[in-house]
Amino acid sequence: MKQFSNKLTAGKIASLLKVQLEGNPDSIINNASELTEANSQSMCFLGNAKYLSAAQECKAGLLFVDPDIDKTNLPATNMIIVPQPYMMFMLVVRQWLQIDNQSQPSVIADTAKIASSAHLEAGVSVGEYVVIGENCRIGADTRLMNHVSIANDVEIGANCLFYPHSVIYQEIQIGNRVIIHAGEVIGADGFGYIAVNGKQEKVPQIGIVCIGDDVEIGANACIDRATLAVTKIGNGTKIDNLVQVGHNCVIANDSVLCAQVGLAGSTNVGSQVYLAGQVGAAGHISIGDRSLVGAQSGIASSLPADGKYFGSPAIEAMQEKRMWISLKKLPQLMKDFRKLLKQHEV
Amino acid sequence: MKQFSNKLTAGKIASLLKVQLEGNPDSIINNASELTEANSQSMCFLGNAKYLSAAQECKAGLLFVDPDIDKTNLPATNMIIVPQPYMMFMLVVRQWLQIDNQSQPSVIADTAKIASSAHLEAGVSVGEYVVIGENCRIGADTRLMNHVSIANDVEIGANCLFYPHSVIYQEIQIGNRVIIHAGEVIGADGFGYIAVNGKQEKVPQIGIVCIGDDVEIGANACIDRATLAVTKIGNGTKIDNLVQVGHNCVIANDSVLCAQVGLAGSTNVGSQVYLAGQVGAAGHISIGDRSLVGAQSGIASSLPADGKYFGSPAIEAMQEKRMWISLKKLPQLMKDFRKLLKQHEV
Amino acid sequence: MKQFSNKLTAGKIASLLKVQLEGNPDSIINNASELTEANSQSMCFLGNAKYLSAAQECKAGLLFVDPDIDKTNLPATNMIIVPQPYMMFMLVVRQWLQIDNQSQPSVIADTAKIASSAHLEAGVSVGEYVVIGENCRIGADTRLMNHVSIANDVEIGANCLFYPHSVIYQEIQIGNRVIIHAGEVIGADGFGYIAVNGKQEKVPQIGIVCIGDDVEIGANACIDRATLAVTKIGNGTKIDNLVQVGHNCVIANDSVLCAQVGLAGSTNVGSQVYLAGQVGAAGHISIGDRSLVGAQSGIASSLPADGKYFGSPAIEAMQEKRMWISLKKLPQLMKDFRKLLKQHEV
Repeated sequence: MKQFSNKLTAGKIASLLKVQLEGNPDSIINNASELTEANSQSMCFLGNAKYLSAAQECKAGLLFVDPDIDKTNLPATNMIIVPQPYMMFMLVVRQWLQIDNQSQPSVIADTAKIASSAHLEAGVSVGEYVVIGENCRIGADTRLMNHVSIANDVEIGANCLFYPHSVIYQEIQIGNRVIIHAGEVIGADGFGYIAVNGKQEKVPQIGIVCIGDDVEIGANACIDRATLAVTKIGNGTKIDNLVQVGHNCVIANDSVLCAQVGLAGSTNVGSQVYLAGQVGAAGHISIGDRSLVGAQSGIASSLPADGKYFGSPAIEAMQEKRMWISLKKLPQLMKDFRKLLKQHEV
Repeated sequence: MKQFSNKLTAGKIASLLKVQLEGNPDSIINNASELTEANSQSMCFLGNAKYLSAAQECKAGLLFVDPDIDKTNLPATNMIIVPQPYMMFMLVVRQWLQIDNQSQPSVIADTAKIASSAHLEAGVSVGEYVVIGENCRIGADTRLMNHVSIANDVEIGANCLFYPHSVIYQEIQIGNRVIIHAGEVIGADGFGYIAVNGKQEKVPQIGIVCIGDDVEIGANACIDRATLAVTKIGNGTKIDNLVQVGHNCVIANDSVLCAQVGLAGSTNVGSQVYLAGQVGAAGHISIGDRSLVGAQSGIASSLPADGKYFGSPAIEAMQEKRMWISLKKLPQLMKDFRKLLKQHEV
Repeated sequence: MKQFSNKLTAGKIASLLKVQLEGNPDSIINNASELTEANSQSMCFLGNAKYLSAAQECKAGLLFVDPDIDKTNLPATNMIIVPQPYMMFMLVVRQWLQIDNQSQPSVIADTAKIASSAHLEAGVSVGEYVVIGENCRIGADTRLMNHVSIANDVEIGANCLFYPHSVIYQEIQIGNRVIIHAGEVIGADGFGYIAVNGKQEKVPQIGIVCIGDDVEIGANACIDRATLAVTKIGNGTKIDNLVQVGHNCVIANDSVLCAQVGLAGSTNVGSQVYLAGQVGAAGHISIGDRSLVGAQSGIASSLPADGKYFGSPAIEAMQEKRMWISLKKLPQLMKDFRKLLKQHEV
């Protein structure tokens, strides 16, 4: 059950979605919950008839119901009857979280260490023990939670949310409405060395990272700074926990990198690409727009756009599947073949 | 060599284990060490005859020795002769660490920021720069080390140990005797989006995480909060470093997830399951009780209980092994087959 | 563009490299940049004729140029004509960063909590909210950035650089000139349990970690402490982001572990070994000196020195390649074989 700070009426909720409410518009709702834990101030949803009996015992103050579900025995006095009730429910939750968020006063903790040359726009919130370096610029209404560490010369847009313990190295640029989860590191040195007589000599990493608008980056993910130039994450791209993006990678807009994906250096990822969990990609290759790459695949060379890929090395997914089906039959084939050889020799 | 804060006598050590001491019960022991670095106040073990010569030169003040080992030339004046001396030695170390731990005074650092509505039971220790949010409840004798960050409405049981820089998001529930290593993140948003016209729209993540008793979670591991409802880690389950547990996963009791394992969302893991390093599991599947899954395997669909599995996709381990043995012979088979075809055509 | 804190003249830059300057030795340079963003105080390089047109429009105050490139239309008034201009450029950048670094005053932040028994040599810098435990020793000119957390009894050498939020557990030993990136955890407990009646009983981890000189460790990497004895990282070894090194591993000198590599416990890695991204290694094995292991490989057993290995399980790379080429042809082989069988039966 998610308890919201602000209460809404059932009528207000219906109006947020521009849908019809059946019932009392003045009923007060203050939480979103599952059917089984609802109380009279809960908002719930019923999208699948298999949860009907749970809904029949549910005390929710507001129920989103699919039009195709039989409503005769539902006790809910307030209903919003819409297709895709789960999605509508979640749309309300999303707006409600924003309302809660906006009603929080912006506070700058006394313990925050903010360089005198840093510039914070109106409405910026800064949590306990946050450190903000010289010449940083932070856009309006951005919130930095406890222990966030921001080095010198960083630019952050408006309406961003930085969870505790996120770390931003020097000179990084971050867009608007970016969400950064805890423990993530943006701008650590790319992994570049030149072997000289068996010793690894460090190549200095003096490029930057540029993160677009509406990006979300998961907990403990790492986006390395470029050697020269820029490591780039395009607008709307979503990156899950524990992902590694190497130096000088360029990811276009609206792509999705699931947990534990790793990109070696200087790889280009197109737009609307989907890399499933634990995928790895070699360096200096291109992954075409709208590619879908299956979990744990190893992308060893460039992939054309619009394909589905799988395997290590990743190839066209149907071919990989045929190979794997053949491989399953291989032990039997071996036996049959030896038998045949014997017959042949005789 | 591990130097303990508290000294114990050889007699006390024997009594902790309820075993016989041969030698002087008043000898003072203050450290646990390997044979090669021992001094007169060291406790050591000799479980394997191949270390006999090291033991013969060892000045340890107390030696655990296997009964089957010849003791004629051992200089140790104090011995505990037991089967499995390594295990007995480690049992003493474990108790000794607890004794040291309990003798540490509980301190709440002046720099800790603890919300006035938070409730800490007796004996809670809070390190430097710790932040504890509103309405948190922390059980007796739990220790939060430096820089731990705990958001609002978190419940933590008794006798837990949180290493530095661990991060707990809002509303998370944690049991008793839980150990959380540095940099770990519990409760970050699950990775949920709905694609609308090529844009990824965020699905709000308003569920929680519930961690049972006696769980240990490794450094920089991530356990995501549920979309709705709960991501659950059962009692006694052990999770290694850099593991990713997706939203709404439910892991039962006494399972083991080795380093860098990744579980996608809504996957059920049974009890006493063992997932070796770098294993990945798809979402919305079940891994049966007592399954053993080999390193780097990719679990693509549900696995029945009590099996051994291996490969990507993971299948029954013996079948995977047969496939791989066949695959090794495949290049030769290809040659033989072409030869046969040629003979055939002729 | 990397703006340096200290300005250098073109003449000084040439003298750092002991090379000839063509042009005015008194020209002031204050940044390193790409050709396309250069200004009159930029240092740039031109190593490849395909960037000639960019160089012809470049206003750089100093240009490193390959001797084989036609210089007739280059507007740069100051040039250093050397083979491998990129490498020479980077050598200057590296020295320049050191000059900038050395000109930074060493500061100990008021908010740092340093135990009275800790000893800091001359020139140590300590950032905001750093915590240093009892009996620590920190060598000359080492810099600890914001929020670094160092437990008791840690020894750190001279000229090290710890980025924000790095965590060092108790009793760890770290050499000279070591670079530790943000969020990294050294010395967390190894993942050791003994199953007793289906419960995982924790094996106490009382060994240490010993890191040699000139090691670099990436963001959010984890190096676990030994059960007994020591987990060891040899001189000059470089470890990338999100790498896991299990307890009691011993890595020799000058090896390279790319991002997301995972080593299980007690594994030995030789010197000058290269493990590409996402490689996993089983425990209790040895990886010979100068081994090269391809991305995502799973090292299941010991590997002899000087080989190239690939696959999961990792085998000699050429054999793996032949197997994979055969596998690609396997679906066709299956068809041909069935056809042959049919002919045979008839």
